[in-house]
Amino acid sequence: FEKLKSKVMEIAKQTRKIGEDDPRRIVHAIKVGLALTFVSLFYYVRPLYNGFGQAGMWAILTVVVVFEFSVGGTLSKSINRGCATLIAGALGVGAECLAKLCGEKGQPFVLGVLVFLLAAIATFTRFFPKVKQRYDYGVTIFILTFSLVAVSGSQAANLQIAYQRLSTILIGGATCMIISIFVCPVWAGQDLHNLIAANVEKLATFLEGFGDELFSSLGDESSVVPCKDDKEKTYLQVYKSVLNSKATEESLANFAWWEVGHGRFKFHHPWKQYLKIGVLVRECACHIEVLNGCINSKPQAASEFQLKIHSTCKNMSMECSKVLKELSFAIKNMTFPSAAAKIHMQNSIATADEFKSILMENSSLSTKTDVQELMSVLVTASVLIDIIKCVEKISVSVDE
Amino acid sequence: FEKLKSKVMEIAKQTRKIGEDDPRRIVHAIKVGLALTFVSLFYYVRPLYNGFGQAGMWAILTVVVVFEFSVGGTLSKSINRGCATLIAGALGVGAECLAKLCGEKGQPFVLGVLVFLLAAIATFTRFFPKVKQRYDYGVTIFILTFSLVAVSGSQAANLQIAYQRLSTILIGGATCMIISIFVCPVWAGQDLHNLIAANVEKLATFLEGFGDELFSSLGDESSVVPCKDDKEKTYLQVYKSVLNSKATEESLANFAWWEVGHGRFKFHHPWKQYLKIGVLVRECACHIEVLNGCINSKPQAASEFQLKIHSTCKNMSMECSKVLKELSFAIKNMTFPSAAAKIHMQNSIATADEFKSILMENSSLSTKTDVQELMSVLVTASVLIDIIKCVEKISVSVDE
Repeated sequence: FEKLKSKVMEIAKQTRKIGEDDPRRIVHAIKVGLALTFVSLFYYVRPLYNGFGQAGMWAILTVVVVFEFSVGGTLSKSINRGCATLIAGALGVGAECLAKLCGEKGQPFVLGVLVFLLAAIATFTRFFPKVKQRYDYGVTIFILTFSLVAVSGSQAANLQIAYQRLSTILIGGATCMIISIFVCPVWAGQDLHNLIAANVEKLATFLEGFGDELFSSLGDESSVVPCKDDKEKTYLQVYKSVLNSKATEESLANFAWWEVGHGRFKFHHPWKQYLKIGVLVRECACHIEVLNGCINSKPQAASEFQLKIHSTCKNMSMECSKVLKELSFAIKNMTFPSAAAKIHMQNSIATADEFKSILMENSSLSTKTDVQELMSVLVTASVLIDIIKCVEKISVSVDE
Repeated sequence: FEKLKSKVMEIAKQTRKIGEDDPRRIVHAIKVGLALTFVSLFYYVRPLYNGFGQAGMWAILTVVVVFEFSVGGTLSKSINRGCATLIAGALGVGAECLAKLCGEKGQPFVLGVLVFLLAAIATFTRFFPKVKQRYDYGVTIFILTFSLVAVSGSQAANLQIAYQRLSTILIGGATCMIISIFVCPVWAGQDLHNLIAANVEKLATFLEGFGDELFSSLGDESSVVPCKDDKEKTYLQVYKSVLNSKATEESLANFAWWEVGHGRFKFHHPWKQYLKIGVLVRECACHIEVLNGCINSKPQAASEFQLKIHSTCKNMSMECSKVLKELSFAIKNMTFPSAAAKIHMQNSIATADEFKSILMENSSLSTKTDVQELMSVLVTASVLIDIIKCVEKISVSVDE
């Protein structure tokens, strides 16, 4: 009994966390409930029931299957479903007429062959990357409707049923679209926009934390507050989520493609640019992963040379972080990167040059361990600078 | 007209490529066609039609929606669908009885509230990561069936329809499961296994190519065949696909969880181990990405010191590559990594030590540019060695 209680408590805790992480989830659940109740009652009330017949269940089916979290998802599924039903219905009626020409005996045979052919071809088209990306659901519905119409049509053979089904599907789809667009809409485009800006900012946070870390290990280690580590470690771990955001970004961009204009986004906003930035950001995160490995190996002794190198590294890291912050800000507000970003950019490049000259002057002083670790910092920092340049270019192109 | 022709040609070419990349796709398309034709004819033939009534369309619906590329996918969806339909059907009948107690007027109101509550709660549970991962489809079907039964039950009120629907759904699901398991099955587990082994091998290929690249830039640059570059560049690019394989791996592992034992895999094979290896492999690929950036900056002049460092780097890269190849082989055949892997492992560690001592002896000789680039190679190589150790540990644990 105690076990059950603790399990219930745990689930309650998790539920609360999920709700708090993104309150739109609760709103979404309520929206689905609303849409479904509306359609169910629509179907339940007698006069309408007589008008639409058993087809009313298609409205419920449509709502349950079509309603997605984001507006783009709902639109894409509704439109896919509507178009696929129309095309497949027409083809199905055609197939039936063709089968009738073959007489009573040939009919099942012809229908079987047609269903087999269309199902196999349609299933195969789902492996085309472009179809998979955008019309996957439509193809499923196409196969479904075609088989249903081709097979059942010959039994009932009245167009009225088809008309009823289509109209109920349209009612279900329209309900979903209207509720998802007008009641607390969740725009996939907006989410994608925020995700990319947040990812850029995460990298900035890491670099800032990394700079601090370098500073704290710089000489006066006695003055470092020990409890600081935990807080900083979380800072240093945020970038990991950036590495794994590819799938989310792509599905969001996919949904965003379907969305009508909203807020600051027009219809057919250049969503692909976001994906490009995403790729660069992940590449950058990859470098940071390597950089992260270098933190743990701290220098034992601090010579004058080490101090110099450390402070240059710190400067590079800090300047990069500032550039990224400016860029994230620019993406968020859809403006051109500010002049400050360019200045920090130049600063970081200058620091990198400075680093190289320090290295040249002091190459004979170096001892093995610390050079080893500092070098890696240099390399990563310089690669970072390259990447930031790319990000800058692309953020400019987005704002165009 | 010319345009149309070229477009058709292009599509034909793409179709051929998709078919050739994985011939199982064509087989899959044929399987779906077969299953659908079978169920359709089942529904079409009169005696059965009279027995099952309009519910026959549920069989078609089930086949279209449930049939997935891999056995695991089909099983997961069929089982989800079957269980969800049963539970939701029972609850729906219960809800209807409850509504009847409230009299003629209260009935729609009570039903509306119940549908709203269950739909909202079920939709919300889809945000739980564990539910999302495994029972997402089941929850959808649960909402669908519950609403349908709750609303339509009061109209027809005969259990026979429910029984018919359930039996047709079972027939559809069973058809899918039987065809997907016994006709050229595509096991998600096998795919996952191959994917991981292939990814490890890709890393090995990269390191081998990288070693060659280092060797070719070693002093005698005049003797290098120029056309070699293109071939090698493709070698060096393979690892990129490793970086993006996370989503595929996870969905495969998910499907594999549902699969019954097959071939060398038992039911509930430790699929999570594969995911762990996948994470480490991606981390390794991340380091390789950084390493890749170092290739383009070749040394201008070759001193004796440079030659030494270059050849040690080459050795490290080659030894790592051999270890990875052995590991990939071990994963593929599900054996323990061979003794050769351990020897190569030790060799690579020894080379890394050698490198450090060379560096210590020659620290005063170094000039800025080449040290810079060689260092990065060292750092990456040493990190690689760490990672290989992890991979080795895990591949041992998999084979246990």
